[in-house]
Amino acid sequence: MDKFLERYSSVIEQAFGEYYRRHTSPEHLYQPVHYILSLGGKRLRPALVLLAADSFGCPLEKAMPAAMAIEVFHNFSLVHDDIMDRAPLRRGHPTVHCRWDANTAILSGDVMMIQAYELFETYRGDTFREVILAFNRVARQVCEGQQLDMDYENIEDVSQAQYMEMIRLKTAVLIGGALRIGGIVAGASARELEALEGFGTDVGLAFQLTDDYLDTFGDPRTFGKRIGGDILEGKKTFLYITARERASREEFERAFSLADEEEKIEAVRDLYRATGADQALREQIDRYTEKALAHVDRLPFSQPYREHYIRLARALVQRKL
Amino acid sequence: MDKFLERYSSVIEQAFGEYYRRHTSPEHLYQPVHYILSLGGKRLRPALVLLAADSFGCPLEKAMPAAMAIEVFHNFSLVHDDIMDRAPLRRGHPTVHCRWDANTAILSGDVMMIQAYELFETYRGDTFREVILAFNRVARQVCEGQQLDMDYENIEDVSQAQYMEMIRLKTAVLIGGALRIGGIVAGASARELEALEGFGTDVGLAFQLTDDYLDTFGDPRTFGKRIGGDILEGKKTFLYITARERASREEFERAFSLADEEEKIEAVRDLYRATGADQALREQIDRYTEKALAHVDRLPFSQPYREHYIRLARALVQRKL
Repeated sequence: MDKFLERYSSVIEQAFGEYYRRHTSPEHLYQPVHYILSLGGKRLRPALVLLAADSFGCPLEKAMPAAMAIEVFHNFSLVHDDIMDRAPLRRGHPTVHCRWDANTAILSGDVMMIQAYELFETYRGDTFREVILAFNRVARQVCEGQQLDMDYENIEDVSQAQYMEMIRLKTAVLIGGALRIGGIVAGASARELEALEGFGTDVGLAFQLTDDYLDTFGDPRTFGKRIGGDILEGKKTFLYITARERASREEFERAFSLADEEEKIEAVRDLYRATGADQALREQIDRYTEKALAHVDRLPFSQPYREHYIRLARALVQRKL
Repeated sequence: MDKFLERYSSVIEQAFGEYYRRHTSPEHLYQPVHYILSLGGKRLRPALVLLAADSFGCPLEKAMPAAMAIEVFHNFSLVHDDIMDRAPLRRGHPTVHCRWDANTAILSGDVMMIQAYELFETYRGDTFREVILAFNRVARQVCEGQQLDMDYENIEDVSQAQYMEMIRLKTAVLIGGALRIGGIVAGASARELEALEGFGTDVGLAFQLTDDYLDTFGDPRTFGKRIGGDILEGKKTFLYITARERASREEFERAFSLADEEEKIEAVRDLYRATGADQALREQIDRYTEKALAHVDRLPFSQPYREHYIRLARALVQRKL
């Protein structure tokens, strides 16, 4: 993470430290909320809310409740997604449904969604209305994206367009929404909000595609997860879809039918290289990074802030590509 | 259900008929939403939103989105509670997690909560802010009530005060909130809103206590569920808590330890009668009904509307008591 975003992260941690004390009873409801929120993570989304507000000269304290709302919502979605995906670990710690149980994870997730809405109560008048409307739209789309992700597990012929739409909904709109909401709080114009959201959405797409790339071709020492996870799950990523379109059916099935896990990962990686799927993915990442940067030109920021946005867009896709 | 509330129910059904067409894709996300909402039910909560608005001369069309939001939220809570309670049936039909699966029920429930917030988007200015704030508070309390309900399954010595607080949060605040939100939409004063919410909360408590009474002493032909369900589950209801306080430990355990289900139900019923728990519960129901009626005196309605509130309070507790 970039240095300037780290500055935001530390004030976010501080704000959450105080937040935990606000609601404590019933314990079994709020303990898991505090647990998941205190596992940390990059705090990328709330940092983007603060960045957007900061760029327009809005004090960080004013934007903080919105930043926290976005992070609480993001963590709500992680808690519920982890149940659905039967994930045992999140950020190296047991997921809420594993540490407690599925019922606890459902209900604590529910209350987190409500807490996100409550955090917006600090805003007034048109600002209040605009943040709630923007947030409603984002929240719905995140659910739709998660549904498509689950749907695509059971469909063989997912197209690239369908895949891009799924990651747009599941991941990118929340990043775009974080920037838009930061802009709303700061009083940005409708045109500026479009540019902020556009930047965030395109960065979000490039970010998710980079994650896909690293899941297959990343460095196991820095990626944090096992390399090849998507391959073993048969996940219909951009790489999978491109290779499936370009390879013969036999080639494709031969690689994916190998029983030994390491052999399978290696064979699929070779297939991705041979079909140029890896190259196509890198080009796709570049395309969305460039699209994101084009939005920065439509924003009225002074040079230091422009640099932040540009560095951010590059940093998110240059995580050891 | 009272005749005058039925009039509201039919316009509510009509409004939902159109609502289903608004969101249809992804299918697997929205089908369960339409399914649970179209199972009907009494539509008590949205009817109360309309009643409150109507009493202040507000057109039903204006209050309808708020009424639908309350019903969508109520159904969200049913979908998630049914997963937690492993309930197979809801209104005589398979629950969402049984008809589909738990993942579908989690995610469709989540999107329903967001849909509830979206339905409030129709309101503007202070009204918008006030309904969102009132709704946030209600939604959080419903989650807290569900948590206490689950907590009390594992605690033997639940007190009457704890039980009353649990049903207040889980059931009564949403009924109070429905009336308050109807009043907000209609432009009622702060004092009137307090009276509306107070009426609804007390009616809600009396309503839930009546349900407890009928679960043990009701007529199987009209109650709709098996009589004695709470006894077999060992649920810590008002009857259970009162009898446990008044009976000797031996008497109490003897009744509850019977293996044969029908014998156990009969023995516990006898215990409830012998200890006067049944009488205490009827008195408690009367107390909250009277408290509810006292709030009506603080409302500025003309006689026909006062009658509606009075008949409503009585109807909800005179379901074959």
